[in-house]
Amino acid sequence: MSNVPEDHVDHPLERLMFFSDAVFAIAITLLVIEIKVPHLHTQNPAEAWEGVRGILPSLFGYVLSFLVIGRFWIGHHTALQAMEHHTSKLIWPNIFLLMAVAFMPFATAFMAENLHNSGPTTFYNLALLFLAVCSLRVVSIATAPGHTRPGFSETTRRTMIARSMGVIVTVLITLAATFAFTSGGISQMLLALMPLVQRVLIKLSLSRMKPAVEPAEA
Amino acid sequence: MSNVPEDHVDHPLERLMFFSDAVFAIAITLLVIEIKVPHLHTQNPAEAWEGVRGILPSLFGYVLSFLVIGRFWIGHHTALQAMEHHTSKLIWPNIFLLMAVAFMPFATAFMAENLHNSGPTTFYNLALLFLAVCSLRVVSIATAPGHTRPGFSETTRRTMIARSMGVIVTVLITLAATFAFTSGGISQMLLALMPLVQRVLIKLSLSRMKPAVEPAEA
Amino acid sequence: MSNVPEDHVDHPLERLMFFSDAVFAIAITLLVIEIKVPHLHTQNPAEAWEGVRGILPSLFGYVLSFLVIGRFWIGHHTALQAMEHHTSKLIWPNIFLLMAVAFMPFATAFMAENLHNSGPTTFYNLALLFLAVCSLRVVSIATAPGHTRPGFSETTRRTMIARSMGVIVTVLITLAATFAFTSGGISQMLLALMPLVQRVLIKLSLSRMKPAVEPAEA
Amino acid sequence: MSNVPEDHVDHPLERLMFFSDAVFAIAITLLVIEIKVPHLHTQNPAEAWEGVRGILPSLFGYVLSFLVIGRFWIGHHTALQAMEHHTSKLIWPNIFLLMAVAFMPFATAFMAENLHNSGPTTFYNLALLFLAVCSLRVVSIATAPGHTRPGFSETTRRTMIARSMGVIVTVLITLAATFAFTSGGISQMLLALMPLVQRVLIKLSLSRMKPAVEPAEA
Repeated sequence: MSNVPEDHVDHPLERLMFFSDAVFAIAITLLVIEIKVPHLHTQNPAEAWEGVRGILPSLFGYVLSFLVIGRFWIGHHTALQAMEHHTSKLIWPNIFLLMAVAFMPFATAFMAENLHNSGPTTFYNLALLFLAVCSLRVVSIATAPGHTRPGFSETTRRTMIARSMGVIVTVLITLAATFAFTSGGISQMLLALMPLVQRVLIKLSLSRMKPAVEPAEA
Repeated sequence: MSNVPEDHVDHPLERLMFFSDAVFAIAITLLVIEIKVPHLHTQNPAEAWEGVRGILPSLFGYVLSFLVIGRFWIGHHTALQAMEHHTSKLIWPNIFLLMAVAFMPFATAFMAENLHNSGPTTFYNLALLFLAVCSLRVVSIATAPGHTRPGFSETTRRTMIARSMGVIVTVLITLAATFAFTSGGISQMLLALMPLVQRVLIKLSLSRMKPAVEPAEA
Repeated sequence: MSNVPEDHVDHPLERLMFFSDAVFAIAITLLVIEIKVPHLHTQNPAEAWEGVRGILPSLFGYVLSFLVIGRFWIGHHTALQAMEHHTSKLIWPNIFLLMAVAFMPFATAFMAENLHNSGPTTFYNLALLFLAVCSLRVVSIATAPGHTRPGFSETTRRTMIARSMGVIVTVLITLAATFAFTSGGISQMLLALMPLVQRVLIKLSLSRMKPAVEPAEA
Repeated sequence: MSNVPEDHVDHPLERLMFFSDAVFAIAITLLVIEIKVPHLHTQNPAEAWEGVRGILPSLFGYVLSFLVIGRFWIGHHTALQAMEHHTSKLIWPNIFLLMAVAFMPFATAFMAENLHNSGPTTFYNLALLFLAVCSLRVVSIATAPGHTRPGFSETTRRTMIARSMGVIVTVLITLAATFAFTSGGISQMLLALMPLVQRVLIKLSLSRMKPAVEPAEA
């Protein structure tokens, strides 16, 4: 490939961000069309609440995945903001990340419509794991030394990577719990541990930095 | 969190606006896919108008929710235009607002396909109430003193907040009427009171301003 | 409303364009999900072509509406490019235009799945008429004297308005033909007259201009 | 048309890119809604993996088409980056390209849900061929001498066109193989030849350049 002048063509960061933002926005909004509309046969409002109760798993899946995709969007956003200029190394890892993001509406619907079976919940967690790994890779590339803007500190890089790792660790714990108890619904609640796991990993990661690094201006 | 240098990374307002605009645009356009296409069995045009009559509630829901989402988009837009710089306080309230916006296609379809039952109409109004509360929160943060641009006046802030409150009050009136008459279809027409309620609240809010505030240049 | 300082808040043209572009893009892409996927029962490729023949009306509708929406996007685009600054007069007419655009996937599916019945074709033409009227209104506001950029000529304005009128006239001819022959499929071909009708109207409109107007630099 | 001052109105490249990016992003994300969610009747996780096995063709189609659309997006992106200014010659070829892109979710679902029949696979390949031809046309126009930015070299142009040709040649080989073996699934694997075919064509194309052309700075 050495004789193909790929980098002759300026492939700017802005369009990559724009395309990614659009895929995130579409995936997050498509979550809603997987919720089945209940059809009522009587005029009795009680039947309506019966119908809503029937789709509670879908509503739960909607809220969960909206927050998950929203969180990954913020992470993507923050990582790409850190970059000084575009690197073509980012293109394919970013497309795999978007493939994982766009897949979440399916994984959510599969889990929500079969909450009585732990298999689809495990499938959802595997999809989330794939998403987290793709995100970690994009964050690593975007914040690698040489790609970032002048003011970008090692502390911020470590915080961002530790946060991505926190997602991976939490999903692994949840997967382990699902196998131990074979109960998808309950083990899924372990995902709520995520902020805690992230905080621990950030502390650990920052405490291992060499003291020469300037402290964060927080 | 004090040792996490979150604000090191510049997280600009433009990308937040862009992402929000995209979610609003997708949600408003997805409204259409909830309208079921009638299938006709004869060549008789009269059957076609029969079919259209059958989906009139869906067409009504499409127009209503298009105007509702369009109105909230304008409000969001105006509020974020008022800001001078990005604040990370806005991120999560904005994601909850988008969650409420993206949910409207479901609430619309649920109401429109079950207009004979007041339950789904109440559900729609509750979704609208959640949307209005999320919007009020975003407007309050975006127009809070210290976040806004130099020329931004207290009068405009009060107008915008009173307008958001007007939506909440109108939805509450409509909800009350639904419970009083147990008739979704008719009480839904009270939503048309919205401009009136908004105007009253704006007048009330502005009349309580201290006279020291400069009058609007309108 | 005179004491509400609406124009205090700068509501720029760019975000309106962006939101509109997004709705156009989503509506044009959603056309595809109305095409039903044929399910085949044998390994015989002939059955596949049978299946494709069954969805030919949907494929025809896809191509027709893609070109229609694409054409209106170009018109919208061109009109808003002509503007020097944002005017709040544009907001609601633009939201109604977007409502008409976003409705086209439904109108297309209704027509395509019932091509044997002239009713849905008439419905499609009425939706197209509504779209054309909304578009004419937006074009008129955007290119009105006082809103446009310095270099913008009366010739261009007349050309753009005549082009919008051309759509309306062609749809009216098609509607008339549908009523005369009660045959949707055939009269729909009259839509192909559109470029001709537009050209005639543009010539007519320009020929009525006062000679004082400078000729176009074409 | 000579008296219609079309180019009076500045129709900038940015909005064309934006609209195109949005259509690419929506089409790539819509791929997921064609995957049918399996419904499980028991609590047995084995049934879940049974369900996943049933949708493996759809998952394969999702990954394949995501990479295909992603690749064409990169190509589109790179071609339009090469341009110095907008040309109205690009508008309609670009709309046809977008029509081909937006059609891929249908072609993917048709193929994936009927993988036992070679017909839909041929249909998919024909859709891909149409997409590749439209893309070649847009690339040719965008990189034509006179449209490109100062630094843009003939080497890059030839590389980009050879890459587009590589897609066309590979799809033609795959189509030929499908007719020879009447087995869609297996011949589809020939699409993996694409990078190889592209490399050969790029080498061929560059080797035919006149030596006067400066070597690429790679």
